Amino acid sequence: MGKVYLIGAGPGATDLITVRGAGLLKRADIVFHDALVQPEMLALAAGAKQVAVGKRCSRISTDQRFINRRLIEAAARYEVVVRLKGGDPMLFGRAQEEIDALEAAGIPYEIVPGVTAALSASAEVGVSLTQRGASRSVVFATPRVGEGEDVSDWAPAVAGADTAVLYMAVGRAAEIAAILEGHGMAATTPVVIVENASLPASRHLGCTLRGLKNGSAQGLTGPALMLIGDVFRKRAYALIGEELMTADSLLQIAPRG
Amino acid sequence: MGKVYLIGAGPGATDLITVRGAGLLKRADIVFHDALVQPEMLALAAGAKQVAVGKRCSRISTDQRFINRRLIEAAARYEVVVRLKGGDPMLFGRAQEEIDALEAAGIPYEIVPGVTAALSASAEVGVSLTQRGASRSVVFATPRVGEGEDVSDWAPAVAGADTAVLYMAVGRAAEIAAILEGHGMAATTPVVIVENASLPASRHLGCTLRGLKNGSAQGLTGPALMLIGDVFRKRAYALIGEELMTADSLLQIAPRG
Repeated sequence: MGKVYLIGAGPGATDLITVRGAGLLKRADIVFHDALVQPEMLALAAGAKQVAVGKRCSRISTDQRFINRRLIEAAARYEVVVRLKGGDPMLFGRAQEEIDALEAAGIPYEIVPGVTAALSASAEVGVSLTQRGASRSVVFATPRVGEGEDVSDWAPAVAGADTAVLYMAVGRAAEIAAILEGHGMAATTPVVIVENASLPASRHLGCTLRGLKNGSAQGLTGPALMLIGDVFRKRAYALIGEELMTADSLLQIAPRG
Repeated sequence: MGKVYLIGAGPGATDLITVRGAGLLKRADIVFHDALVQPEMLALAAGAKQVAVGKRCSRISTDQRFINRRLIEAAARYEVVVRLKGGDPMLFGRAQEEIDALEAAGIPYEIVPGVTAALSASAEVGVSLTQRGASRSVVFATPRVGEGEDVSDWAPAVAGADTAVLYMAVGRAAEIAAILEGHGMAATTPVVIVENASLPASRHLGCTLRGLKNGSAQGLTGPALMLIGDVFRKRAYALIGEELMTADSLLQIAPRG
């Protein structure tokens, strides 16, 4: 019987996977991968059968139970089965459903962590998520909006942390910003949006929470992260004036102190 | 003039650095590294001059301004200067001070992200930090205790998130647990402590917030993370009975629902 490796592909760039992950891709017999995984990274698994199983911001998506079943079946036929996920498997990667299914079926598995997109975005922007005297806590969250009563249960954690990184949030940025203002975040809180982190098509946009509410993030189409907090003030300023920035965003950046 | 690379070494295991990071270590002329970086990883930089610059849970610590100055001086003499930091540079790595110093000196730099210890710990324990329907937000924090009035400003973010990972916290675990209970976290909240994540000496300990308050984490000496939240209930249960677990910890694990 084979073993299933749940591997974090990292943020996108081919060389931001771990050495362990890259080594396992080379040995893989079959690779089940998300749509977000880059073709150049799949080239590392040239000897393996490659199966796309969707998951691109919930747009295309193979049913999770179907993926679980495919992994279990593959472990009966192949020695090295890889499930390659964008970023890190344990952060917004739906890994638990696959882990539980593998454990229930008695299939050996191993999780290989990856660089989560927030860290790559932070590296590109050149702003540390934590900073001595300015940020001792960072929250990573996927906000929900407009789906029911309990809809803003994520907001207190985001508003309460010194720094926040929101995943899969840009498409609903205006509503999210309004909810965060409603939870007491200042309208002038700096925001940097990083689209396509670590890839050649990477773009950075600076604005404020109020700017977001007023539509600054409209028109972004690639996978993007919203970095929010006072630590981004200088960079958000420096980015103002770039494309997609509105006069309103500009006005909403207030000088520090 | 050379370039300075701030590289995340990852959680500890030599093959959990990124492919990019490993490649730069091989090319490095000089490497300034934290005390937590493993000797096996430094072997990747066999051709480089290696300089230890402290930083092990603030025990040994070269003055930060001195490190900044050494990096700037090295960039004048060497082509590839590496600053190797445990985990990821942008999470609890004091990177901002080095970035600001390099920018002020006009030295080219690049940040290479790494796998932060929380993700490695989560992978080892086999519990995803986010889970559909159970956890949409994760906070990473370094708690402060007993240093002044403002001392528990980190606690609302930790208590408000669905899942929390505390860095550099195990030495003050009892006080931290008491503060979190004071901020409304249930005494029965499951906790898994991961010591030496990704290394052969790795250990996992399960308890509850109340167990922590009562001394469950006493005796831990290696670098350790505290993973806190309902997602860890099953694993914390499974770990109960291992060394360092007290009867009190055991009693404080309440059945789900």
